[in-house]
Amino acid sequence: MIALDLIGIGTGNPEHVTLAAIRAMREADLILLPRKGDEKSDLADLRRQICTDHLPDLSRVVEFDLPRRDGETPYLDAVNDWHDAIAGAWKAAIDTHLPGGGRVALLVWGDPSLYDSTLRVAARLGLKPRVVPGVTSLSVLTAAHAIPLNDLAAPVVITTGRRLRQGWPEGADTVAVMLDQGGAFTALDPTGVTIHWGAYLGMEQEALIAGPLAEAGPRILETRAALRARHGWIMDIYLLHR
Amino acid sequence: MIALDLIGIGTGNPEHVTLAAIRAMREADLILLPRKGDEKSDLADLRRQICTDHLPDLSRVVEFDLPRRDGETPYLDAVNDWHDAIAGAWKAAIDTHLPGGGRVALLVWGDPSLYDSTLRVAARLGLKPRVVPGVTSLSVLTAAHAIPLNDLAAPVVITTGRRLRQGWPEGADTVAVMLDQGGAFTALDPTGVTIHWGAYLGMEQEALIAGPLAEAGPRILETRAALRARHGWIMDIYLLHR
Repeated sequence: MIALDLIGIGTGNPEHVTLAAIRAMREADLILLPRKGDEKSDLADLRRQICTDHLPDLSRVVEFDLPRRDGETPYLDAVNDWHDAIAGAWKAAIDTHLPGGGRVALLVWGDPSLYDSTLRVAARLGLKPRVVPGVTSLSVLTAAHAIPLNDLAAPVVITTGRRLRQGWPEGADTVAVMLDQGGAFTALDPTGVTIHWGAYLGMEQEALIAGPLAEAGPRILETRAALRARHGWIMDIYLLHR
Repeated sequence: MIALDLIGIGTGNPEHVTLAAIRAMREADLILLPRKGDEKSDLADLRRQICTDHLPDLSRVVEFDLPRRDGETPYLDAVNDWHDAIAGAWKAAIDTHLPGGGRVALLVWGDPSLYDSTLRVAARLGLKPRVVPGVTSLSVLTAAHAIPLNDLAAPVVITTGRRLRQGWPEGADTVAVMLDQGGAFTALDPTGVTIHWGAYLGMEQEALIAGPLAEAGPRILETRAALRARHGWIMDIYLLHR
Protein backbone atom coordinates (compact mmCIF):
# COMPACT_ATOMS: atom_id res chain seq x y z
CA MET A 1 0.00 0.00 0.00
CA ILE A 2 2.79 2.40 0.91
CA ALA A 3 6.00 2.62 -1.14
CA LEU A 4 8.71 4.72 0.42
CA ASP A 5 11.51 6.63 -1.31
CA LEU A 6 14.45 8.07 0.63
CA ILE A 7 15.98 10.66 -1.64
CA GLY A 8 19.48 12.00 -1.06
CA ILE A 9 19.56 15.66 -2.06
CA GLY A 10 23.13 16.71 -1.30
CA THR A 11 24.14 19.15 1.38
CA GLY A 12 22.69 22.53 0.62
CA ASN A 13 23.63 23.48 -2.92
CA PRO A 14 20.38 22.95 -4.86
CA GLU A 15 22.49 21.99 -7.88
CA HIS A 16 23.89 18.98 -6.03
CA VAL A 17 20.54 17.31 -6.64
CA THR A 18 20.79 14.42 -9.11
CA LEU A 19 18.49 13.75 -12.05
CA ALA A 20 17.40 10.55 -10.27
CA ALA A 21 16.39 12.58 -7.21
CA ILE A 22 14.32 14.93 -9.35
CA ARG A 23 12.64 11.97 -11.06
CA ALA A 24 11.82 10.34 -7.71
CA MET A 25 10.40 13.61 -6.34
CA ARG A 26 8.12 13.82 -9.37
CA GLU A 27 7.00 10.20 -8.95
CA ALA A 28 5.98 10.72 -5.33
CA ASP A 29 2.34 11.09 -4.30
CA LEU A 30 3.38 12.65 -1.00
CA ILE A 31 6.62 14.38 0.01
CA LEU A 32 7.10 14.80 3.76
CA LEU A 33 9.24 17.72 4.90
CA PRO A 34 10.22 17.75 8.56
CA ARG A 35 9.94 20.98 10.56
CA LYS A 36 12.62 21.15 13.24
CA GLY A 37 11.73 24.36 14.99
CA ASP A 38 13.14 27.79 14.30
CA GLU A 39 16.84 27.22 14.44
CA LYS A 40 17.27 25.28 11.22
CA SER A 41 14.75 27.14 9.12
CA ASP A 42 17.46 27.78 6.50
CA LEU A 43 17.52 24.04 5.84
CA ALA A 44 13.73 23.80 5.71
CA ASP A 45 13.72 26.73 3.27
CA LEU A 46 16.24 24.92 1.07
CA ARG A 47 14.15 21.75 0.97
CA ARG A 48 11.10 23.77 0.00
CA GLN A 49 13.17 25.54 -2.66
CA ILE A 50 14.25 22.22 -4.15
CA CYS A 51 10.60 21.16 -4.29
CA THR A 52 9.57 24.45 -5.86
CA ASP A 53 12.33 24.16 -8.47
CA HIS A 54 11.44 20.67 -9.64
CA LEU A 55 7.73 20.04 -9.05
CA PRO A 56 4.88 21.44 -11.10
CA ASP A 57 3.19 22.54 -7.86
CA LEU A 58 3.51 21.95 -4.12
CA SER A 59 0.19 20.17 -3.61
CA ARG A 60 1.94 16.89 -2.73
CA VAL A 61 4.35 18.52 -0.27
CA VAL A 62 3.37 18.33 3.40
CA GLU A 63 5.29 19.55 6.43
CA PHE A 64 5.24 17.71 9.72
CA ASP A 65 6.76 18.49 13.11
CA LEU A 66 9.85 16.43 13.83
CA PRO A 67 9.88 15.22 17.45
CA ARG A 68 12.79 16.48 19.56
CA ARG A 69 15.46 14.21 20.99
CA ASP A 70 15.51 13.82 24.76
CA GLY A 71 18.75 15.35 25.98
CA GLU A 72 18.44 13.78 29.44
CA THR A 73 18.55 10.04 28.76
CA PRO A 74 21.81 8.30 27.67
CA TYR A 75 22.77 8.95 24.06
CA LEU A 76 21.91 5.66 22.30
CA ASP A 77 18.70 5.20 24.31
CA ALA A 78 17.66 8.75 23.52
CA VAL A 79 18.38 8.25 19.81
CA ASN A 80 16.41 5.01 19.69
CA ASP A 81 13.44 6.61 21.47
CA TRP A 82 13.71 9.55 19.11
CA HIS A 83 13.62 7.27 16.04
CA ASP A 84 10.51 5.60 17.46
CA ALA A 85 8.89 9.00 17.85
CA ILE A 86 9.85 10.03 14.29
CA ALA A 87 8.36 6.78 12.96
CA GLY A 88 5.14 7.68 14.75
CA ALA A 89 5.16 11.15 13.21
CA TRP A 90 5.72 9.71 9.72
CA LYS A 91 2.89 7.23 10.18
CA ALA A 92 0.47 9.92 11.38
CA ALA A 93 1.34 12.16 8.41
CA ILE A 94 1.01 9.28 5.92
CA ASP A 95 -2.33 8.13 7.40
CA THR A 96 -3.64 11.68 7.19
CA HIS A 97 -2.42 12.68 3.75
CA LEU A 98 -2.29 9.38 1.88
CA PRO A 99 -5.09 7.29 3.40
CA GLY A 100 -5.50 5.22 0.23
CA GLY A 101 -1.80 4.37 -0.01
CA GLY A 102 0.74 5.46 -2.62
CA ARG A 103 4.34 6.57 -2.93
CA VAL A 104 5.81 8.63 -0.08
CA ALA A 105 9.16 10.40 -0.35
CA LEU A 106 11.48 11.99 2.18
CA LEU A 107 14.29 14.31 1.17
CA VAL A 108 17.48 13.49 3.03
CA TRP A 109 20.46 15.83 3.38
CA GLY A 110 23.55 14.27 1.86
CA ASP A 111 23.07 10.55 1.39
CA PRO A 112 20.56 8.38 3.31
CA SER A 113 23.25 5.83 4.23
CA LEU A 114 25.70 8.06 6.11
CA TYR A 115 24.93 9.09 9.70
CA ASP A 116 21.30 9.54 8.89
CA SER A 117 18.30 8.08 10.67
CA THR A 118 15.75 7.69 7.89
CA LEU A 119 16.63 4.06 7.03
CA ARG A 120 16.28 3.11 10.71
CA VAL A 121 12.98 4.98 10.99
CA ALA A 122 11.68 3.24 7.84
CA ALA A 123 12.58 -0.16 9.33
CA ARG A 124 10.40 0.63 12.36
CA LEU A 125 7.41 0.99 10.02
CA GLY A 126 8.22 -2.30 8.28
CA LEU A 127 9.00 -0.44 5.05
CA LYS A 128 11.87 -1.43 2.75
CA PRO A 129 12.52 1.84 0.94
CA ARG A 130 13.91 2.60 -2.47
CA VAL A 131 16.99 4.71 -1.79
CA VAL A 132 18.17 7.38 -4.22
CA PRO A 133 21.84 8.02 -3.41
CA GLY A 134 22.98 11.58 -2.90
CA VAL A 135 26.19 13.57 -2.73
CA THR A 136 27.55 13.29 0.83
CA SER A 137 28.85 16.17 2.93
CA LEU A 138 32.24 14.40 2.87
CA SER A 139 32.39 14.73 -0.90
CA VAL A 140 31.31 18.36 -0.70
CA LEU A 141 33.98 19.04 1.94
CA THR A 142 36.80 17.50 -0.08
CA ALA A 143 35.52 19.18 -3.26
CA ALA A 144 35.45 22.58 -1.58
CA HIS A 145 39.06 22.14 -0.45
CA ALA A 146 40.01 20.36 -3.73
CA ILE A 147 41.70 17.55 -1.82
CA PRO A 148 41.44 13.76 -1.99
CA LEU A 149 39.75 12.01 0.93
CA ASN A 150 42.33 9.24 1.05
CA ASP A 151 46.09 9.09 0.65
CA LEU A 152 47.22 6.92 -2.24
CA ALA A 153 45.93 3.39 -1.53
CA ALA A 154 45.52 4.31 2.17
CA PRO A 155 42.48 3.77 4.41
CA VAL A 156 40.14 6.37 5.90
CA VAL A 157 38.12 6.20 9.12
CA ILE A 158 34.76 7.97 9.26
CA THR A 159 33.71 8.62 12.83
CA THR A 160 31.79 10.96 15.12
CA GLY A 161 32.87 13.87 17.30
CA ARG A 162 31.73 11.90 20.34
CA ARG A 163 34.16 9.09 19.51
CA LEU A 164 37.02 11.38 18.51
CA ARG A 165 37.06 12.68 22.09
CA GLN A 166 38.36 9.23 23.08
CA GLY A 167 41.48 9.81 20.98
CA TRP A 168 42.76 9.31 17.44
CA PRO A 169 40.95 6.28 16.01
CA GLU A 170 43.01 3.21 15.27
CA GLY A 171 43.52 2.02 11.76
CA ALA A 172 44.09 5.14 9.64
CA ASP A 173 46.03 8.38 9.36
CA THR A 174 43.03 10.11 7.80
CA VAL A 175 39.89 10.63 9.85
CA ALA A 176 36.64 12.21 8.70
CA VAL A 177 34.61 13.54 11.62
CA MET A 178 30.86 14.05 11.49
CA LEU A 179 28.25 15.00 14.08
CA ASP A 180 30.68 16.97 16.22
CA GLN A 181 28.79 19.26 18.58
CA GLY A 182 31.93 21.43 18.56
CA GLY A 183 35.64 21.10 19.19
CA ALA A 184 36.07 17.34 19.65
CA PHE A 185 39.49 17.78 18.00
CA THR A 186 40.69 19.67 21.08
CA ALA A 187 40.97 16.24 22.74
CA LEU A 188 43.87 15.36 20.38
CA ASP A 189 47.55 16.21 20.48
CA PRO A 190 47.70 18.57 17.47
CA THR A 191 51.37 17.84 16.66
CA GLY A 192 51.70 16.90 13.01
CA VAL A 193 47.95 16.97 12.40
CA THR A 194 46.33 18.93 9.57
CA ILE A 195 42.63 19.85 9.50
CA HIS A 196 40.28 20.68 6.62
CA TRP A 197 37.03 22.03 8.04
CA GLY A 198 33.81 23.16 6.42
CA ALA A 199 30.47 24.49 7.68
CA TYR A 200 27.18 25.07 5.81
CA LEU A 201 28.74 23.09 2.96
CA GLY A 202 27.27 23.86 -0.43
CA MET A 203 25.21 26.76 0.96
CA GLU A 204 25.68 30.48 0.52
CA GLN A 205 26.96 30.65 4.11
CA GLU A 206 29.69 28.07 3.37
CA ALA A 207 32.82 28.61 5.48
CA LEU A 208 36.13 26.79 5.02
CA ILE A 209 39.27 26.68 7.14
CA ALA A 210 42.36 24.53 6.60
CA GLY A 211 45.79 24.32 8.18
CA PRO A 212 47.86 22.74 10.92
CA LEU A 213 45.50 21.80 13.75
CA ALA A 214 47.55 23.70 16.35
CA GLU A 215 46.99 26.95 14.46
CA ALA A 216 43.70 26.32 12.65
CA GLY A 217 41.92 24.61 15.56
CA PRO A 218 41.45 27.75 17.68
CA ARG A 219 40.42 29.73 14.57
CA ILE A 220 37.80 27.09 13.79
CA LEU A 221 36.39 27.21 17.33
CA GLU A 222 36.15 30.99 17.19
CA THR A 223 34.66 31.07 13.68
CA ARG A 224 32.22 28.29 14.52
CA ALA A 225 30.91 30.13 17.58
CA ALA A 226 30.52 33.38 15.64
CA LEU A 227 28.74 31.70 12.72
CA ARG A 228 26.46 29.77 15.03
CA ALA A 229 25.50 32.97 16.79
CA ARG A 230 24.90 34.74 13.50
CA HIS A 231 22.83 32.04 11.78
CA GLY A 232 21.21 30.44 14.82
CA TRP A 233 22.48 26.96 13.86
CA ILE A 234 25.53 25.29 12.38
CA MET A 235 26.39 22.01 10.68
CA ASP A 236 30.04 21.29 10.03
CA ILE A 237 32.40 18.40 9.34
CA TYR A 238 36.13 18.03 9.02
CA LEU A 239 38.96 15.86 7.88
CA LEU A 240 42.02 15.25 10.03
CA HIS A 241 45.28 13.96 8.61
CA ARG A 242 48.52 13.06 10.35
CA MET B 1 45.35 30.26 -18.97
CA ILE B 2 43.98 26.80 -18.15
CA ALA B 3 41.15 26.29 -15.65
CA LEU B 4 40.45 22.70 -14.75
CA ASP B 5 37.18 21.13 -13.60
CA LEU B 6 37.04 17.63 -12.14
CA ILE B 7 33.43 16.58 -12.39
CA GLY B 8 32.07 13.64 -10.39
CA ILE B 9 29.43 11.87 -12.50
CA GLY B 10 28.31 9.00 -10.26
CA THR B 11 28.93 5.35 -10.98
CA GLY B 12 27.16 4.35 -14.13
CA ASN B 13 23.53 5.40 -13.85
CA PRO B 14 23.34 8.48 -16.10
CA GLU B 15 20.66 9.87 -13.75
CA HIS B 16 23.15 10.02 -10.89
CA VAL B 17 24.62 13.07 -12.56
CA THR B 18 23.96 16.26 -10.60
CA LEU B 19 22.70 19.56 -11.97
CA ALA B 20 26.07 21.07 -10.99
CA ALA B 21 27.87 18.44 -13.08
CA ILE B 22 25.69 19.25 -16.09
CA ARG B 23 26.35 22.96 -15.63
CA ALA B 24 30.11 22.41 -15.40
CA MET B 25 30.10 20.23 -18.53
CA ARG B 26 28.33 23.00 -20.41
CA GLU B 27 30.80 25.61 -19.17
CA ALA B 28 33.81 23.63 -20.40
CA ASP B 29 35.69 24.57 -23.55
CA LEU B 30 37.22 21.09 -23.73
CA ILE B 31 36.10 17.81 -22.17
CA LEU B 32 38.75 15.08 -22.13
CA LEU B 33 37.50 11.49 -22.19
CA PRO B 34 40.11 8.81 -21.50
CA ARG B 35 40.22 5.71 -23.71
CA LYS B 36 41.38 2.68 -21.71
CA GLY B 37 41.52 0.03 -24.43
CA ASP B 38 38.81 -2.44 -25.28
CA GLU B 39 37.97 -3.96 -21.95
CA LYS B 40 36.16 -1.03 -20.40
CA SER B 41 34.41 0.27 -23.49
CA ASP B 42 31.08 0.07 -21.63
CA LEU B 43 32.37 2.82 -19.33
CA ALA B 44 33.66 4.92 -22.22
CA ASP B 45 30.26 4.52 -23.92
CA LEU B 46 28.53 5.74 -20.75
CA ARG B 47 30.71 8.83 -20.55
CA ARG B 48 29.98 9.63 -24.17
CA GLN B 49 26.28 9.06 -23.50
CA ILE B 50 26.34 11.53 -20.61
CA CYS B 51 27.99 14.10 -22.90
CA THR B 52 25.45 13.44 -25.66
CA ASP B 53 22.57 13.80 -23.20
CA HIS B 54 23.64 17.17 -21.82
CA LEU B 55 25.68 19.04 -24.43
CA PRO B 56 24.29 20.76 -27.51
CA ASP B 57 26.93 18.97 -29.59
CA LEU B 58 30.12 16.96 -29.07
CA SER B 59 32.53 19.41 -30.68
CA ARG B 60 34.23 20.15 -27.35
CA VAL B 61 34.61 16.44 -26.43
CA VAL B 62 37.98 14.88 -27.21
CA GLU B 63 39.17 11.34 -26.47
CA PHE B 64 42.74 10.59 -25.52
CA ASP B 65 44.56 7.34 -24.83
CA LEU B 66 45.11 6.70 -21.15
CA PRO B 67 48.60 5.31 -20.49
CA ARG B 68 48.71 1.85 -18.96
CA ARG B 69 50.09 1.11 -15.53
CA ASP B 70 53.29 -0.92 -15.37
CA GLY B 71 52.39 -4.22 -13.67
CA GLU B 72 56.07 -5.12 -13.06
CA THR B 73 57.31 -2.37 -10.73
CA PRO B 74 56.20 -2.22 -7.07
CA TYR B 75 52.64 -0.95 -6.59
CA LEU B 76 53.13 2.59 -5.28
CA ASP B 77 56.06 3.28 -7.64
CA ALA B 78 54.03 2.00 -10.56
CA VAL B 79 51.05 4.17 -9.58
CA ASN B 80 53.23 7.27 -9.23
CA ASP B 81 54.87 6.65 -12.62
CA TRP B 82 51.43 6.07 -14.08
CA HIS B 83 50.12 9.37 -12.72
CA ASP B 84 53.14 11.12 -14.27
CA ALA B 85 52.30 9.51 -17.60
CA ILE B 86 48.63 10.51 -17.35
CA ALA B 87 49.65 14.10 -16.57
CA GLY B 88 51.74 14.05 -19.76
CA ALA B 89 48.78 12.74 -21.75
CA TRP B 90 46.50 15.47 -20.36
CA LYS B 91 49.04 18.14 -21.17
CA ALA B 92 49.49 16.91 -24.73
CA ALA B 93 45.72 16.82 -25.30
CA ILE B 94 45.25 20.29 -23.79
CA ASP B 95 48.12 21.78 -25.81
CA THR B 96 46.66 20.30 -28.99
CA HIS B 97 42.98 21.10 -28.51
CA LEU B 98 43.05 24.25 -26.39
CA PRO B 99 46.25 26.04 -27.45
CA GLY B 100 44.85 29.43 -26.48
CA GLY B 101 43.82 28.33 -22.98
CA GLY B 102 40.34 27.94 -21.50
CA ARG B 103 38.34 25.65 -19.28
CA VAL B 104 39.11 21.93 -19.40
CA ALA B 105 36.90 19.31 -17.75
CA LEU B 106 37.38 15.66 -16.88
CA LEU B 107 34.47 13.41 -15.99
CA VAL B 108 35.30 11.26 -12.99
CA TRP B 109 33.41 8.11 -11.98
CA GLY B 110 31.91 8.48 -8.56
CA ASP B 111 33.52 11.37 -6.72
CA PRO B 112 36.97 12.85 -7.48
CA SER B 113 38.04 12.59 -3.82
CA LEU B 114 37.64 8.85 -3.24
CA TYR B 115 40.29 6.44 -4.55
CA ASP B 116 40.65 8.42 -7.70
CA SER B 117 43.82 9.77 -9.29
CA THR B 118 42.63 12.90 -11.04
CA LEU B 119 43.41 15.31 -8.16
CA ARG B 120 46.95 13.90 -7.97
CA VAL B 121 47.38 14.16 -11.72
CA ALA B 122 46.14 17.76 -11.67
CA ALA B 123 48.69 18.63 -8.96
CA ARG B 124 51.48 17.38 -11.27
CA LEU B 125 50.43 20.01 -13.81
CA GLY B 126 50.36 22.73 -11.16
CA LEU B 127 46.60 23.10 -11.55
CA LYS B 128 44.25 23.70 -8.60
CA PRO B 129 40.99 22.37 -9.98
CA ARG B 130 37.42 23.23 -9.25
CA VAL B 131 35.88 19.97 -8.03
CA VAL B 132 32.23 19.12 -8.62
CA PRO B 133 31.32 16.44 -6.07
CA GLY B 134 29.60 13.29 -7.29
CA VAL B 135 27.67 10.36 -5.90
CA THR B 136 30.20 7.77 -4.73
CA SER B 137 30.05 4.04 -5.45
CA LEU B 138 29.71 3.54 -1.67
CA SER B 139 26.46 5.52 -1.65
CA VAL B 140 25.22 3.60 -4.69
CA LEU B 141 26.10 0.28 -3.01
CA THR B 142 24.27 1.08 0.22
CA ALA B 143 21.33 2.53 -1.73
CA ALA B 144 21.03 -0.60 -3.85
CA HIS B 145 20.93 -2.76 -0.70
CA ALA B 146 18.85 -0.13 1.19
CA ILE B 147 21.20 -0.31 4.18
CA PRO B 148 23.01 2.34 6.22
CA LEU B 149 26.79 2.53 5.84
CA ASN B 150 27.35 2.96 9.55
CA ASP B 151 25.84 1.45 12.67
CA LEU B 152 24.21 4.01 14.93
CA ALA B 153 26.93 6.47 15.99
CA ALA B 154 29.59 3.90 15.02
CA PRO B 155 32.67 4.40 12.85
CA VAL B 156 33.41 2.99 9.38
CA VAL B 157 36.76 2.17 7.79
CA ILE B 158 37.14 2.60 4.04
CA THR B 159 40.04 0.57 2.72
CA THR B 160 41.39 -1.35 -0.28
CA GLY B 161 41.35 -5.03 -1.18
CA ARG B 162 45.14 -5.04 -1.00
CA ARG B 163 45.01 -3.93 2.65
CA LEU B 164 42.14 -6.19 3.60
CA ARG B 165 44.36 -9.17 2.79
CA GLN B 166 46.41 -8.18 5.85
CA GLY B 167 43.37 -8.84 8.07
CA TRP B 168 40.34 -7.04 9.48
CA PRO B 169 41.30 -3.37 9.86
CA GLU B 170 41.53 -1.96 13.34
CA GLY B 171 39.10 0.61 14.54
CA ALA B 172 35.69 -0.40 13.20
CA ASP B 173 33.21 -3.24 12.85
CA THR B 174 32.11 -1.94 9.45
CA VAL B 175 34.58 -1.95 6.55
CA ALA B 176 33.98 -0.69 3.03
CA VAL B 177 36.36 -2.28 0.54
CA MET B 178 37.28 -0.68 -2.77
CA LEU B 179 39.79 -1.56 -5.50
CA ASP B 180 39.70 -5.28 -4.76
CA GLN B 181 41.11 -7.23 -7.69
CA GLY B 182 38.99 -10.12 -6.45
CA GLY B 183 38.38 -12.12 -3.30
CA ALA B 184 40.43 -10.21 -0.73
CA PHE B 185 37.74 -11.16 1.80
CA THR B 186 38.87 -14.79 1.58
CA ALA B 187 41.81 -13.73 3.80
CA LEU B 188 39.35 -13.18 6.70
CA ASP B 189 37.78 -15.59 9.16
CA PRO B 190 34.16 -15.37 7.95
CA THR B 191 32.63 -16.23 11.33
CA GLY B 192 30.03 -13.62 12.26
CA VAL B 193 30.78 -11.47 9.21
CA THR B 194 28.10 -10.24 6.80
CA ILE B 195 28.86 -8.96 3.29
CA HIS B 196 26.93 -6.62 0.98
CA TRP B 197 28.49 -6.76 -2.47
CA GLY B 198 27.74 -4.95 -5.71
CA ALA B 199 29.22 -4.89 -9.20
CA TYR B 200 28.55 -2.54 -12.15
CA LEU B 201 26.71 -0.34 -9.66
CA GLY B 202 24.10 1.89 -11.24
CA MET B 203 24.52 0.24 -14.63
CA GLU B 204 22.17 -2.12 -16.46
CA GLN B 205 24.53 -4.99 -15.60
CA GLU B 206 24.28 -4.23 -11.86
CA ALA B 207 24.66 -7.37 -9.72
CA LEU B 208 24.07 -7.54 -5.96
CA ILE B 209 24.74 -10.28 -3.41
CA ALA B 210 24.31 -10.09 0.36
CA GLY B 211 24.52 -12.58 3.19
CA PRO B 212 26.80 -14.21 5.74
CA LEU B 213 30.34 -14.14 4.34
CA ALA B 214 30.80 -17.91 4.78
CA GLU B 215 27.89 -18.57 2.45
CA ALA B 216 27.84 -15.48 0.22
CA GLY B 217 31.64 -15.26 -0.26
CA PRO B 218 31.94 -18.31 -2.55
CA ARG B 219 28.84 -17.21 -4.50
CA ILE B 220 30.38 -13.77 -5.01
CA LEU B 221 33.66 -15.27 -6.30
CA GLU B 222 31.77 -17.48 -8.74
CA THR B 223 29.41 -14.72 -9.90
CA ARG B 224 32.27 -12.25 -10.23
CA ALA B 225 34.28 -14.61 -12.46
CA ALA B 226 31.26 -15.34 -14.65
CA LEU B 227 30.35 -11.65 -15.03
CA ARG B 228 33.91 -10.68 -15.77
CA ALA B 229 34.09 -13.31 -18.48
CA ARG B 230 30.78 -12.17 -19.94
CA HIS B 231 31.42 -8.40 -19.94
CA GLY B 232 35.20 -8.42 -20.38
CA TRP B 233 35.70 -6.26 -17.24
CA ILE B 234 34.28 -5.78 -13.77
CA MET B 235 34.23 -3.11 -11.09
CA ASP B 236 32.84 -4.05 -7.70
CA ILE B 237 32.90 -2.95 -4.07
CA TYR B 238 31.55 -4.35 -0.85
CA LEU B 239 30.74 -3.66 2.75
CA LEU B 240 31.75 -6.05 5.53
CA HIS B 241 30.13 -5.97 8.94
CA ARG B 242 30.86 -8.00 12.05
